[in-house]
Amino acid sequence: MYAGPGVKTSKDFPIPDTMKAWVLGNPGELKLAQKPVPVPKRAEVLVRMPFNKNFTPGHEYMGTVAALGPGVDEYKIGQRVTVEIHAGCGQCKRCREGMYTSCHNYGLNYGDVDKGHRANGFTTDGGFCEYQVNNINTLVAIPDTMSDEEATLVVTAGTAMYGLTELGGLVAGESVVVTGPGPIGLLGVAVAKAMGAQPVILTGTRDNRLKIGRELGADHVINVRNENVVEAVKRLNAGKGVDYVVECSGAPNAVNEAIYMVNRGGKVCLAAFPHAETPVDVAHIVRNNIYLYGIRGEGKSATHRAEAFMSQKRFDATKIHTHTFALDDLPTAIRYAKERIDDAIKVVVKARGVAAHQVAAE
Amino acid sequence: MYAGPGVKTSKDFPIPDTMKAWVLGNPGELKLAQKPVPVPKRAEVLVRMPFNKNFTPGHEYMGTVAALGPGVDEYKIGQRVTVEIHAGCGQCKRCREGMYTSCHNYGLNYGDVDKGHRANGFTTDGGFCEYQVNNINTLVAIPDTMSDEEATLVVTAGTAMYGLTELGGLVAGESVVVTGPGPIGLLGVAVAKAMGAQPVILTGTRDNRLKIGRELGADHVINVRNENVVEAVKRLNAGKGVDYVVECSGAPNAVNEAIYMVNRGGKVCLAAFPHAETPVDVAHIVRNNIYLYGIRGEGKSATHRAEAFMSQKRFDATKIHTHTFALDDLPTAIRYAKERIDDAIKVVVKARGVAAHQVAAE
Amino acid sequence: MYAGPGVKTSKDFPIPDTMKAWVLGNPGELKLAQKPVPVPKRAEVLVRMPFNKNFTPGHEYMGTVAALGPGVDEYKIGQRVTVEIHAGCGQCKRCREGMYTSCHNYGLNYGDVDKGHRANGFTTDGGFCEYQVNNINTLVAIPDTMSDEEATLVVTAGTAMYGLTELGGLVAGESVVVTGPGPIGLLGVAVAKAMGAQPVILTGTRDNRLKIGRELGADHVINVRNENVVEAVKRLNAGKGVDYVVECSGAPNAVNEAIYMVNRGGKVCLAAFPHAETPVDVAHIVRNNIYLYGIRGEGKSATHRAEAFMSQKRFDATKIHTHTFALDDLPTAIRYAKERIDDAIKVVVKARGVAAHQVAAE
Amino acid sequence: MYAGPGVKTSKDFPIPDTMKAWVLGNPGELKLAQKPVPVPKRAEVLVRMPFNKNFTPGHEYMGTVAALGPGVDEYKIGQRVTVEIHAGCGQCKRCREGMYTSCHNYGLNYGDVDKGHRANGFTTDGGFCEYQVNNINTLVAIPDTMSDEEATLVVTAGTAMYGLTELGGLVAGESVVVTGPGPIGLLGVAVAKAMGAQPVILTGTRDNRLKIGRELGADHVINVRNENVVEAVKRLNAGKGVDYVVECSGAPNAVNEAIYMVNRGGKVCLAAFPHAETPVDVAHIVRNNIYLYGIRGEGKSATHRAEAFMSQKRFDATKIHTHTFALDDLPTAIRYAKERIDDAIKVVVKARGVAAHQVAAE
Repeated sequence: MYAGPGVKTSKDFPIPDTMKAWVLGNPGELKLAQKPVPVPKRAEVLVRMPFNKNFTPGHEYMGTVAALGPGVDEYKIGQRVTVEIHAGCGQCKRCREGMYTSCHNYGLNYGDVDKGHRANGFTTDGGFCEYQVNNINTLVAIPDTMSDEEATLVVTAGTAMYGLTELGGLVAGESVVVTGPGPIGLLGVAVAKAMGAQPVILTGTRDNRLKIGRELGADHVINVRNENVVEAVKRLNAGKGVDYVVECSGAPNAVNEAIYMVNRGGKVCLAAFPHAETPVDVAHIVRNNIYLYGIRGEGKSATHRAEAFMSQKRFDATKIHTHTFALDDLPTAIRYAKERIDDAIKVVVKARGVAAHQVAAE
Repeated sequence: MYAGPGVKTSKDFPIPDTMKAWVLGNPGELKLAQKPVPVPKRAEVLVRMPFNKNFTPGHEYMGTVAALGPGVDEYKIGQRVTVEIHAGCGQCKRCREGMYTSCHNYGLNYGDVDKGHRANGFTTDGGFCEYQVNNINTLVAIPDTMSDEEATLVVTAGTAMYGLTELGGLVAGESVVVTGPGPIGLLGVAVAKAMGAQPVILTGTRDNRLKIGRELGADHVINVRNENVVEAVKRLNAGKGVDYVVECSGAPNAVNEAIYMVNRGGKVCLAAFPHAETPVDVAHIVRNNIYLYGIRGEGKSATHRAEAFMSQKRFDATKIHTHTFALDDLPTAIRYAKERIDDAIKVVVKARGVAAHQVAAE
Repeated sequence: MYAGPGVKTSKDFPIPDTMKAWVLGNPGELKLAQKPVPVPKRAEVLVRMPFNKNFTPGHEYMGTVAALGPGVDEYKIGQRVTVEIHAGCGQCKRCREGMYTSCHNYGLNYGDVDKGHRANGFTTDGGFCEYQVNNINTLVAIPDTMSDEEATLVVTAGTAMYGLTELGGLVAGESVVVTGPGPIGLLGVAVAKAMGAQPVILTGTRDNRLKIGRELGADHVINVRNENVVEAVKRLNAGKGVDYVVECSGAPNAVNEAIYMVNRGGKVCLAAFPHAETPVDVAHIVRNNIYLYGIRGEGKSATHRAEAFMSQKRFDATKIHTHTFALDDLPTAIRYAKERIDDAIKVVVKARGVAAHQVAAE
Repeated sequence: MYAGPGVKTSKDFPIPDTMKAWVLGNPGELKLAQKPVPVPKRAEVLVRMPFNKNFTPGHEYMGTVAALGPGVDEYKIGQRVTVEIHAGCGQCKRCREGMYTSCHNYGLNYGDVDKGHRANGFTTDGGFCEYQVNNINTLVAIPDTMSDEEATLVVTAGTAMYGLTELGGLVAGESVVVTGPGPIGLLGVAVAKAMGAQPVILTGTRDNRLKIGRELGADHVINVRNENVVEAVKRLNAGKGVDYVVECSGAPNAVNEAIYMVNRGGKVCLAAFPHAETPVDVAHIVRNNIYLYGIRGEGKSATHRAEAFMSQKRFDATKIHTHTFALDDLPTAIRYAKERIDDAIKVVVKARGVAAHQVAAE
C-alpha cells in the first residue's frame, strides 16, 4: 500500500506500488523496467506522467499531481502541472539571491551530502517513468486549455524567457537577433516577439527551420550559408547593430559574430554549448562595453512567465512539436530527435490514455 | 582679448589668447607648439592645467576652472577639478539610459556630424596643453586636501570603481580577484578593499607591483610565474571559486583563467585589451551561468564615487604615482611610462608653479 | 524667409514665418493669436502639428518634422512623429543616470539659467499652435499605419509603461491591479495585459469606463461603489494580495487600499495626484516590505516601448479617443474633456487637412 | 542522551538534555524554566548561547555551534556564529526571488502548515535560553577578533545595511540623512559612512545620542528640537535635497519630512513603525518621482555585508552597547532597555563564562 509519513493521497487517484521506468543499463543502453513509485517529502509532490517526454535537450515533462508531501497545500491531487528543471538547495549564496539555477550545491543530492539541489533528469531521476517526485519549486500549474504536448514545451520557452530576462527583460521595440533555430532558438523568437521586440531576426542554416521561425514571429530570417550574417543583420537594422543577441547555435564563430552584431553597450546571451574552445575578440568586447551572460536552462521563475504567455495564446509553441511516439517506442523516439529524422524538432512520448484532467475529489 | 558669447571669465584669473600645446606631427612625432586657447560653449568650462598628465593608459588630467560657458553655474572660476574622459552625446539610446561611455555617437564630434560626444584625449583634444575646454559632465570637484598628483589618479580609480559597479557594486564580504597589477588593477584592489571585499586577491608577474598591491589592500597576492593561478585562488578561498574577477592584464589566457576562478553565477569584468583573439571556453560560461562585462574606461558616475573614497582618505592612490617631469620633458616622461623605466607606474608632467588652489573672487 | 544658423529645411515643406497659436491671456483666458514660427537649435527639430491635441492630462501632441536643427540626422523632414513630454538637461546627476524625468534642473530653461530642461506644454511652449520646436530626445517616429489620433495617445501609454517599468517590468503571469479608469489607468490595463500580466484587475466608480477597461484587456473589473475593493481583489486573486498596483485614481483612500491589496514584498506605482495629504498606514508598509514609487509622466524611454506595442497592434488605444474638434473649437474641446461631457475621455483637436504622411524629397 | 536522526555532535562539546529558558507566562510575565534542548533537522544547527541578548528591537543573539543537523557541513561544532532573524520558506514566490524577509509564508511554521519560515524570537523560539536551533541560512560566522557583545550587533548593522541595499547600495559620495538615533539609526550612520556616503547627516531629539552618531561617522547632526529639520538638511547640503533618507524614528511627521528632504528622484527607506496612520503628501511623491521602501529587518544577505565591515573594523558598533547583565537579571535588563535607564541603548545579557571561542576537535 503506497504511503509515507505525512503524505496525502486521494482514493480517486490510486497509486500503485511499482511503475514502469526506463533505466540506464550498459553505456548507451536504456531498458524498460519496473521500479517502486517514489514517495514525496517536505515541499515535494508526486507527479504522474501521461508519459510525455521531450528528449533533446531539455528533459522536459508534464503530468498530474498524484500525492502530496507533508505540508504541501500549494497544489492539489489531480492538478495538471509541467516542470522546470532546477530546484536549488535553498541554502547557498546563490539560492539566497534567488539564483537557483546557479546553485553552489549543484548536483549535491546524494546520501550524506544531500543539499537538496535537484536538476530533474540530470542529477536526479527524470521523467522516463510513470511517476516522479518533484520539488514544488519546479512545478508550474497549467490550464485545461493547454494540451499535454504543449505543456512539455513550457520549460523550453522558459529557458528562452530566462535569456531575455538576463538581458534586461524590457525588449519591446528593441532589436533582437536569435542565432540557431533549435527548439530554444525558435521559442526564443516567439518569446521575444510576444514581448514586443522589433525587429526579431533569426539566423540559421536550414530553410525549413527558418520558415518555422517566421511563423513564430521572426520579422526577418537569414540563412548564414547564403550571406555574411553580420552584414545582413546590420543591413536589416538600418546599419546599426542590434540591442540583444540570444546565441543558440553553439557554432564555433557564433560568439564573435554575436559581439559584432550588437551595438555599443549591447548584450549577448549565450545559451548553447560549443564543443571546443572558441576564439573570441575580447578587445572588441572591452572597447564596446558589451555584456555576455551564460545561461544554463531556465531560471528566475522565467518558466512561469513563459507559461503565462502560452496559456494566453500569445504564440503557438506546438509548431515545434513534430512527432509523438508510444512509450514502447522510446528508442525510436530518441533516434528521431537525435538524428532529426523527418525534420523532427520536439518528439513527445505518450503512454496510456489516462485522463490527465481528472479533478481531485479531496 | 579672450572672450566668447555668454562666456564668463574673472579678472582674477586672466586668460591669454594662446597657449603652449603639444601637437601631433609626423607619425610618432610630438611637437610643442603655440595654439589659441579654446572657448567654452553651453555646458562647458575652460580648465587651466597645472599641466599634470598621466599618460598610460588613461589620458587623465586635472586643473583649475578658468572660464565658464553660457549657463554654467555648477562650477566656479578658480575651482580645482579633475576630469573623467567621456561625455556622451546625450541624445542616443545609451545616453538616454545613463550609459554615456557606451554612447552610440562615439567619436562623432567633428563639423557637420557633431553629436556632442567627447572622449578627452581620444576623440577630442586632451590635456597636453595649458588650457582645455571640458563638458561639465566630465568634471569632478576636488578638495584642497587632495594634491594635484593624486587628483590625476581619480579617473583611474573611477575606472576600477566602474568595473565593480557593473559587477553589482555590493562587494562587502565578497571575494574578489584582480588580475594584472597595472594602474587600474592596483587601484581596483584599493577600491574593492575600500568597499569591504574580503578577501581581495591580486595576481601578476612582477613582485614589486604585487607588493604595492598589498599596500593598497590586497589580502593575498599570487605571482603567476610561481604557481597555477586558478589553483592558488581556490586554495586561498576555501576551495570555492571567487565571486568576482576584475581582469586587468590582457594576457592571452586571462579570460579562461577568470572564468575558472569564479564560482557558479559569478561575474567577470574585462578591463584590459588583449592584442589578439583569445580562445575562450564558452561551454564553461554557459554551464556555470557566468556573466562577463567589457568596460571601456569609467562610467555611471563611478569617478565621483572614487573621488569620494579618495577625498575621505580610504586608500592612498599616490602609491602608484612614481615620477614627475617638467613640461619640456614630456618625451622623457612618455618614455618612462611606456618602457616602465625605474619601475614607473604613473608618471605626471607638471608645469608652472601656478597656485591651483587660488580662490575665485567673483 | 524662415531660416536659422545650421538649420535644414526642404522646399517641399515650406515653412511660414508666423503661425496660429493659442496663447494664455488673463487668468483662465485662452486666445488664438499669430506668433513667429520657432527655430530649432542643436539636437532640436521643428514639428508641424496637424494640430492634434489631447488636453487632459498629458499635453500630448504629434505632427510632422518640418525643419532640422544643426547636426540632426536622426529624423527627416516630412517624417511623422509623436512626442514625449520631458527632455532632461543632460548634465545633472539624474540625467547622467538616465532618469531624465527626474531632472534636477526641472523647469530651468529660461534666459540665463537655461539648463536645457524641457517639459513640453508645462515649462516650455506646448502643442497649441501650428509649429513647435522639440528636442530630438522627446520624439518617437511612428509608422504610416498609425493614425494621427492614435499617435497622440502614445505618450499616455508611455506613462503607463513607465509605471510598469519602475515596478520591475517583468509582469508576465503576475497579478496587477489598476485603480482609476482615467486615460492612464485604461492604457495601464492595456499595457499590463500586452506584457502578459494575469490577472489584470481594474477598479473604478464608473461602469462605462470599466467596460472600456474590459475591452482593453482587464480580466476583472470592480466598481468600488458596490463592494469593498480590497476584499474583492483578494477574492479574485485566490486570497493572496496582488504583485503590483498602479494607482491612477488620486482618491484619498487610494494609497492605503493599494498597500492592503499588494502582497508582502509587492510594489505600488503612484501615478495620480491627490488634492490633499492622505493618511497612510506606514507601519503596514514597513511590516510588509512594500515598495512605492511616484512617477511624473513617462520616463526611461518607456514611450518608445509603448509605441512598439501600439504599432504592432497589441492593443487598440483609440478606444479612449472619444471626440475630435476643429481648431477654432478649442474652448469647446477643453470643456468636453474637463467636464467629461458625453463621456469624453481623450478629446483631439485637429486643424487643416494637411497630409501628415507626405514624404520628404530631400 | 541528546541525539536525533542524522545529527552530529562532538564529545568535546557535550550537550545536556535540558536547559534554562525564559518562557512567557501570564501576559507580561517572563519566567525562568527548564526546557528540553531542541534537535536540529535538515539545514539546521544547534547554537549554544553564551546567553547574550539584545532586546530592543531586534531579538538578536550569538553563540557557538553545538550540533549539526543532517547534511550540514557549512559550519563546524564549536564555531562562533551570530544570527540574522529571518529564514524564508524557500518555496514561495518571494523566496524564489531571494526576498526571504518578504516570505509569503511568514509565520507559517506550526504543525500541519509548517512551511519552514522562521523569524527567530518572533514566530519561533528566540534566544532567551541556553540552546536554540537555527536554520543555517540565518547564521553568520564571526572571527575570534570580534567580541560576543559586538557579535550581537551584527544583525542590527545588517538591518541598516539592508536599508542602504534597497536604496541602491552605491552610496559613496552620495548624501544620506538618517532620521532617529536609535540602534538601527546609529548603525545606519556607521554603515553609510563606511560605504563612503558624504555627507551623512543624523537627526534626532537627544544630544547624547547625536553625539554617538558623530563618533560613528555622522558629518553633521541636527537636533530637531532646535531647528527646522528640512531647512537644516538643505542648508547643510548646498540647498539641494539629499539623495537618500533612512527613516528610523517612527515620528508622525517623519515621512513627510523625509520626502521634503530628498531631491527629485531620491529614495527613502522606511525602517521604523509609527504608532498610527500618518498624513503623507502623496502629490509631492508623484511630482518628484520619489521612491519609498519599507524594510522589515535585515534581508538580501545584508547581514553578511555588515559583518564584513565590522570584522574589518570599519566602525565600532560597540559604541551602542551600553550595559551587560547576568542571566538572572533579565527582567532588569529588559527594564533598562525599554525605559532607557542610564541612557541604555543596547543591553546584553550574558550567562556562564563558557569559552565561546573553544575550537572543535572533530
